[in-house]
Amino acid sequence: MTATSHITGKKINRFTHIHHSTEDLVKKSKMGRLLGSLTGCCFQRCVGMDAMNALSMTTYDIDQKYGTQYNKHFLKFLEYVQENDLVCDGAIVVRGAKCHQTGAVNSHEIITMPTISMREEDKDYAISFAVPADTEGITYILGRQSCDTRKREEGTMDRGNQIYGGHEALVVFDDVFVPWDRVFMYKEWDFAGQLVEQFASYHRQSYACKAGVGDVLIGATQCIAEYNGAQKASHVKDKIIEMNHLNETLFCGSLACAAEGHKEPSGTYYVNTLLANVCKQNVTRFPYEIARLAQDIAGGLMVTLPSEEDFRSPEVGKWVEKYYKGNADVSTEDRMRILRLIENITLGTAAVGYLTESMHGAGSPQAQRIMISRQVNMNAKKKVAKKLSGIDVDE
Amino acid sequence: MTATSHITGKKINRFTHIHHSTEDLVKKSKMGRLLGSLTGCCFQRCVGMDAMNALSMTTYDIDQKYGTQYNKHFLKFLEYVQENDLVCDGAIVVRGAKCHQTGAVNSHEIITMPTISMREEDKDYAISFAVPADTEGITYILGRQSCDTRKREEGTMDRGNQIYGGHEALVVFDDVFVPWDRVFMYKEWDFAGQLVEQFASYHRQSYACKAGVGDVLIGATQCIAEYNGAQKASHVKDKIIEMNHLNETLFCGSLACAAEGHKEPSGTYYVNTLLANVCKQNVTRFPYEIARLAQDIAGGLMVTLPSEEDFRSPEVGKWVEKYYKGNADVSTEDRMRILRLIENITLGTAAVGYLTESMHGAGSPQAQRIMISRQVNMNAKKKVAKKLSGIDVDE
Amino acid sequence: MTATSHITGKKINRFTHIHHSTEDLVKKSKMGRLLGSLTGCCFQRCVGMDAMNALSMTTYDIDQKYGTQYNKHFLKFLEYVQENDLVCDGAIVVRGAKCHQTGAVNSHEIITMPTISMREEDKDYAISFAVPADTEGITYILGRQSCDTRKREEGTMDRGNQIYGGHEALVVFDDVFVPWDRVFMYKEWDFAGQLVEQFASYHRQSYACKAGVGDVLIGATQCIAEYNGAQKASHVKDKIIEMNHLNETLFCGSLACAAEGHKEPSGTYYVNTLLANVCKQNVTRFPYEIARLAQDIAGGLMVTLPSEEDFRSPEVGKWVEKYYKGNADVSTEDRMRILRLIENITLGTAAVGYLTESMHGAGSPQAQRIMISRQVNMNAKKKVAKKLSGIDVDE
Amino acid sequence: MTATSHITGKKINRFTHIHHSTEDLVKKSKMGRLLGSLTGCCFQRCVGMDAMNALSMTTYDIDQKYGTQYNKHFLKFLEYVQENDLVCDGAIVVRGAKCHQTGAVNSHEIITMPTISMREEDKDYAISFAVPADTEGITYILGRQSCDTRKREEGTMDRGNQIYGGHEALVVFDDVFVPWDRVFMYKEWDFAGQLVEQFASYHRQSYACKAGVGDVLIGATQCIAEYNGAQKASHVKDKIIEMNHLNETLFCGSLACAAEGHKEPSGTYYVNTLLANVCKQNVTRFPYEIARLAQDIAGGLMVTLPSEEDFRSPEVGKWVEKYYKGNADVSTEDRMRILRLIENITLGTAAVGYLTESMHGAGSPQAQRIMISRQVNMNAKKKVAKKLSGIDVDE
Repeated sequence: MTATSHITGKKINRFTHIHHSTEDLVKKSKMGRLLGSLTGCCFQRCVGMDAMNALSMTTYDIDQKYGTQYNKHFLKFLEYVQENDLVCDGAIVVRGAKCHQTGAVNSHEIITMPTISMREEDKDYAISFAVPADTEGITYILGRQSCDTRKREEGTMDRGNQIYGGHEALVVFDDVFVPWDRVFMYKEWDFAGQLVEQFASYHRQSYACKAGVGDVLIGATQCIAEYNGAQKASHVKDKIIEMNHLNETLFCGSLACAAEGHKEPSGTYYVNTLLANVCKQNVTRFPYEIARLAQDIAGGLMVTLPSEEDFRSPEVGKWVEKYYKGNADVSTEDRMRILRLIENITLGTAAVGYLTESMHGAGSPQAQRIMISRQVNMNAKKKVAKKLSGIDVDE
Repeated sequence: MTATSHITGKKINRFTHIHHSTEDLVKKSKMGRLLGSLTGCCFQRCVGMDAMNALSMTTYDIDQKYGTQYNKHFLKFLEYVQENDLVCDGAIVVRGAKCHQTGAVNSHEIITMPTISMREEDKDYAISFAVPADTEGITYILGRQSCDTRKREEGTMDRGNQIYGGHEALVVFDDVFVPWDRVFMYKEWDFAGQLVEQFASYHRQSYACKAGVGDVLIGATQCIAEYNGAQKASHVKDKIIEMNHLNETLFCGSLACAAEGHKEPSGTYYVNTLLANVCKQNVTRFPYEIARLAQDIAGGLMVTLPSEEDFRSPEVGKWVEKYYKGNADVSTEDRMRILRLIENITLGTAAVGYLTESMHGAGSPQAQRIMISRQVNMNAKKKVAKKLSGIDVDE
Repeated sequence: MTATSHITGKKINRFTHIHHSTEDLVKKSKMGRLLGSLTGCCFQRCVGMDAMNALSMTTYDIDQKYGTQYNKHFLKFLEYVQENDLVCDGAIVVRGAKCHQTGAVNSHEIITMPTISMREEDKDYAISFAVPADTEGITYILGRQSCDTRKREEGTMDRGNQIYGGHEALVVFDDVFVPWDRVFMYKEWDFAGQLVEQFASYHRQSYACKAGVGDVLIGATQCIAEYNGAQKASHVKDKIIEMNHLNETLFCGSLACAAEGHKEPSGTYYVNTLLANVCKQNVTRFPYEIARLAQDIAGGLMVTLPSEEDFRSPEVGKWVEKYYKGNADVSTEDRMRILRLIENITLGTAAVGYLTESMHGAGSPQAQRIMISRQVNMNAKKKVAKKLSGIDVDE
Repeated sequence: MTATSHITGKKINRFTHIHHSTEDLVKKSKMGRLLGSLTGCCFQRCVGMDAMNALSMTTYDIDQKYGTQYNKHFLKFLEYVQENDLVCDGAIVVRGAKCHQTGAVNSHEIITMPTISMREEDKDYAISFAVPADTEGITYILGRQSCDTRKREEGTMDRGNQIYGGHEALVVFDDVFVPWDRVFMYKEWDFAGQLVEQFASYHRQSYACKAGVGDVLIGATQCIAEYNGAQKASHVKDKIIEMNHLNETLFCGSLACAAEGHKEPSGTYYVNTLLANVCKQNVTRFPYEIARLAQDIAGGLMVTLPSEEDFRSPEVGKWVEKYYKGNADVSTEDRMRILRLIENITLGTAAVGYLTESMHGAGSPQAQRIMISRQVNMNAKKKVAKKLSGIDVDE
């Protein structure tokens, strides 16, 4: 998970990396999937990296046009981040606060960016900068997640994922001071749209991580099929194939937009934006169907299972033990653990990341559809159609 | 919601009703939807009614074959239930315990039935009877539901549905005494399959209730679209149409199997079993897609919203109030309430009923597929195909 | 297929029937499916019946408002049609011509109706009347259908459906004389929309016929699975179940809108318009998926099969015979016949009816979506959602 | 479309190319799409190239194991093909004949290969060789295609695609002589499965061409939307976005399996087989949905349009001209031409390639599902799931 910085020449965490080849972009897709499969939830490292790659390009372009020093600011900041191996969060400022900011509380730095294309009259909002996450004046208000309080209960089985989890926050900026050398854009409103589009495109590639969470869910589903003694039923096998097929289709989009990347003037490699949007659009659909199939195979027990407290209780534990035994070779406890993990990913805390965030993170579905319609070359398609049907085409 | 009993001649709750016409079956479909829409969750009345209608037919048929008195037992029990307007739960006994029993704790009576077709060597399990829910020897172990502990928190906003909810239980029978006149089947193993199939078919019709919960979710989605100020976007309107289309398609199956019902020898009207299975099969799919579309329109806020406690807090409540304001005509609180309801139905306690129970209640999807393959008249279809293609067909 | 006219008291073809009960509407759904399964194509009788039922209601309503005599005109025409058992075609006039008119050439009478809701300035087009199909001044220009010329070849195997077929025509009216007592609407522009909506709603119910064509395609698919020796493969069985499930779901919509019909002031029974639109919307989708699954099971041979001429040829017939033999109990000829029938319904002349006409007949998909959005009671849904989430609702 | 042979060092057609890098594999995906978009149908060059790449690897491996000379035979044949720039067809021999052989009649060489994994007792069929297509003893029996006879009519409009088309044939081998230096496998039954799997994997990548045909269909659909004056309707725009989204998703699979290719011992680069199967599985689905959406937007006119003969006729041509005029800026003829092209691709001769061959070419859907289930690393997925849920995993 480390790479050599081509700024500082030192070993750095890959998540503070500026992409220098399409091979490197492909590695980002694979790394995202791998970490998704190791954590089974949103591991929230991509957003800072995506923000920094976008800034590496846009700061360069602003400097070219206006003779500013933003790229220098940015490189200095990048060096600091790489030296100290910091986690960054990419927020897009909207008048003093940023809603639903994933992983805000476990980030070292908050990088702010504008949120949409802007016109000249909006220029006061065309601002980008980085500040340490604990800067005075910043308040974090945590969002509630489905089943969040299970993490505070005694026992750990009921939380499903025993090791990892995520959070979301409303981040409020109330008179926060930003030093000038931490500023990457200041009123260059004509670059706001470009920065947003670049950030969004990288970030849409990043959803390879959901293929990793999909790996976990598929693995859990295969386990429960075996624990239920149903793994040889043809419909069960077919549904698991479908889950894999959808999961790999999703991953193909992330790989393809990386392999088709190209070099920008700043030297940073940029993903194919059409295919990055296609990738993310599939992410807004397939995890829901994969989750539905997981629930199909898991069986109703996934939502009717008694609590760990009842399972451990001297009065009724024996009955839970006896009546929830499936495959004779597997303990009731292991069966319960896998069911809780499936509940966690399809209804519980991790469903927030695997489902709803897959829908809205890096832009809601309609945002990708608009980009797809803009990026396909419709004139080329019309021309071949006309030619083949015998309609005159001006060459 | 009342009807006149054609046993006792008195006004009774429609849920203790034996169906006496196809019109009556159609009313059952509509009543199910209506109650689903009033409660927004599983209201758990259908299962006892479905069990009693199935028993009204099978007890009659057993008596015809074996000269037994089960129908008399059953009618006496029915009269008691109608006189006292009791809620019944239909359990299907599996060796001393019944897993995931919806609504067990709020039922007056437990009606047990066999679970599958049986062979002669299984006859000791071919048993059906009714006992009061608080009979000595019965233990209930409650299942956990996603977000169940929110009901015990201070404040009520975060629970989503302020009024109704459901539960599931493992019901353990440990030396329970059953009086003879409460017995409806005793070792007549050759009628076990029939009783199960009849109960399952009625119960698959009952899933009209999910169209009612769908009504609530569609209504909530329309509200949040308005509260977000997005209700005029063409893609939002189109998605809401799709939600309605799927919801009504699901309902059509329940209506059609009722309208196509017929009278059995016992006098009870029975649904068209092919169409009842088709209805339920759609229920295992459409609510998931309706829920996905609801999350699409609701926006990410549905899973990143702070708690009611933070909303009411003197320190940060003002920011929640300010930054989560959508449409100027709607209070932040109302917007939060609707988002919590959508969370409740798509991820929270009600998702157990709207999603996972739609998948597995009244039989998992594969059970319906097997029934569909058995009930279609494939020979008739092959015959018309052969005839039209010019292949000789023996008439 | 006959009924007693409640106008003339005589036995008539059911397709000249005015609906007098919901039972009668349900019979129409079933009759449509039956005839679809007997013909394997569009049998084109519904449109005239749907036009006449719509006219029976709208002429009555116009007369009530304006004191006209259209209902009398209509009843006289109906009696004439019933007495002579004529086939009618329902055209909707568009400035002198009607495009893609199904079955025009085999109809006795052309009933014209307006095409859309009108404003006062359009009143010259708010006209409805009936004329014999061979009236002077009417010209029919036949449309081409995929594979239409196979009907003119020697041999019949390659046409797929050996018995039935359909056609489409551009119908041009060039100074056609219409006697006054054949007129059902004349400039009552405010009733144009109603007539169109009623005709369209009946006609959307009529698509039960596609479930009949679906029966043929499913039967043919089961045959070819057996002829290929693949009928026991679990994925083949599962795909055929899916075909049946979709076909029955489609049929449920037609049954449900009929069973939920009601009596209009004229005495005619009218379908539930919401559910009729839901029915048709499914018809624009499911036949395509059923056809795709049929092609999956049929195998590539469906599109690579040599001609009947080669099969009968002394030079190469022996090889076709030998190498296209599947199941040893079935002749190569029968296997070829079934494959040609599947080709006919999924790509050939019958695909025009089973696919493209399912898409656009009785209104293109978007027309139904608009009607669905208008007909659902969104306020009722919003109200239950608000109530359950704790938002004040004005009763 | 040329490359430099790394065998002969000369410029050659890319379709006689042995892949020497992942970049080269990616170019193959792109070339396939480009040619699909230029021809609008199956251009049938991939199969020979796929066969040759598979042979380059398997002949090498056989020689390594058995000390044979097949790779030398193969390289000599390759040089001959490259020198003369020949088109090859890849047939897989089945006892004397090969059914549905795409493009057989326009190939210079037929390369035969075994069809399935074999056991020792099948070794007489474990044979691979190349013969000129006009070798004595080979007979071609052409298959019928939907609308094939339109190519023989006067006028060209009705055939849709004015320039290109394809064909299928039954190829019968009747005592064909094969010189020994044209043999690439002879009874090495243990390599039959490998050769088939390699050929199939390359060939599943090749379906990028369908994204090219999809480009044509999308272009035609955009044209007809404009010609109908409907291109600004939001539902039309949204459906075209969906067509593009599906088309690009399909393409991503072909790109991804190429970018993830690797070098085999023979030096040839081989695609990622899991992703190649995922690619092809999507090809068995998406073109059908893209075709359905094209028909939705085209309107019913696509199947009811009169013939070119009627359009040119002095009697009725004026009415066709007048009544089929759409957008005032576009001639009726151009509108007809585009509709015929859409008919051609969704129902006519090109539908054979765009739909049915997408289903069955390079293996039917179930073949890919079996490969997907074999190639995913299910143990790795189970392991991460167990770990996260707290179940002991042996490292």
